[in-house]
Amino acid sequence: MKILVTSGGTSEAIDSVRSITNHSTGRLGKIITETLLAAGYEVCLITTKRALKPKAHPNLNIIEINNTKDLLLEMQERVQDYQVLIHSMAVSDYTPVYMTGLEEVQASSNIEEFLSKQNHQTKISSTDEVQVLFLKKTPKIISLVKEWNPTIHLIGFKLLVDVSEDYLIEIARKSLIKNQADLIIANDQTQISTDKHRAIFVEKDQLQTVKTKEEIAELLLEKIQAYHS
Amino acid sequence: MKILVTSGGTSEAIDSVRSITNHSTGRLGKIITETLLAAGYEVCLITTKRALKPKAHPNLNIIEINNTKDLLLEMQERVQDYQVLIHSMAVSDYTPVYMTGLEEVQASSNIEEFLSKQNHQTKISSTDEVQVLFLKKTPKIISLVKEWNPTIHLIGFKLLVDVSEDYLIEIARKSLIKNQADLIIANDQTQISTDKHRAIFVEKDQLQTVKTKEEIAELLLEKIQAYHS
Repeated sequence: MKILVTSGGTSEAIDSVRSITNHSTGRLGKIITETLLAAGYEVCLITTKRALKPKAHPNLNIIEINNTKDLLLEMQERVQDYQVLIHSMAVSDYTPVYMTGLEEVQASSNIEEFLSKQNHQTKISSTDEVQVLFLKKTPKIISLVKEWNPTIHLIGFKLLVDVSEDYLIEIARKSLIKNQADLIIANDQTQISTDKHRAIFVEKDQLQTVKTKEEIAELLLEKIQAYHS
Repeated sequence: MKILVTSGGTSEAIDSVRSITNHSTGRLGKIITETLLAAGYEVCLITTKRALKPKAHPNLNIIEINNTKDLLLEMQERVQDYQVLIHSMAVSDYTPVYMTGLEEVQASSNIEEFLSKQNHQTKISSTDEVQVLFLKKTPKIISLVKEWNPTIHLIGFKLLVDVSEDYLIEIARKSLIKNQADLIIANDQTQISTDKHRAIFVEKDQLQTVKTKEEIAELLLEKIQAYHS
């Protein structure tokens, strides 16, 4: 069984020296990948430059991407060749379109005009006291996975920050249904550190809670083994 | 002689999962620090989490900061204790103030109102098709150094992207005068890679060009040795 794992966080360039980055150490994706390799699976890990990487392994292929667009293209090409996708990457919801000084925005009669503009400077000038950055939504890649491969086992993540457990589960369940996922692993950033990582495995008929990244990886392995038992 | 070095790139939080990050590997700051330590200097390196770090050394103290505000506070406290500052960190010119959907901005009669707003969500909602991020200028730390310590030897960097050499030198010279620096090291991002790093040392009466990070570190060492000869 071939498993595709994503980890790390995407970066969307504002110009050639600045980006908007989604924080993710890649530590969980590394532990998941190593656990799957140790169990004998073949793994392709799509990750980002600054993410922690697993040790080299004959059954491991690592692909590095930068931004949401790169990720979309890689996944579109690869998803059909895999039986399971574990999509743990922190993907940018928005990508920069245009950045300009406040005065240019104030002078505009229709600010939607900025959505069709582009910055032609390679490094945006830093003379204005206030800058305004327009961002547009990126494609929700997780929602496209089943179109590319209807039979893949899709495992997604839902990260919220400082919410109640009921709300977290509710949002994860919505994602489960909307994206036709087998499992959504719901987690709250306030309950994540290097040593602990509280996560709730949300499936159609079941909820299970674990407390560390290692426990997440072990329970994931059990789920995947059950897919082909 | 005690030398303060800054390296890496600052990150300015948009919310608890996203930041605007200035790209910098920290590779040059690492090589500079190691060269100074090998020559017997005591070095304090202020750097960022993801930057490459020098090997541990009895004369090296490493301090990690995240954003421009942290950097300002650390430098304000420390600059007076050092004889030389090598300020190679890529510091954010702007920091996020408020992010909201396009519709809220369109509905406003005075968009300056957003400059006094704050996002109270820990993770900004991603329902809007277009978001608008307002950013304000950060303090220019290099311009404050001589106020904190009038006798420090100040060495700054000027990074531009894809400009003519004459223009790069002109801008570096302006920074030299404005910030009362001893030396500005001017470089163009299109001429920087892991192996090569073209840089022009701009001083009041002199221009010198080098081609690698190691050459930058060696020429810097010569300059610093001359300060106390």
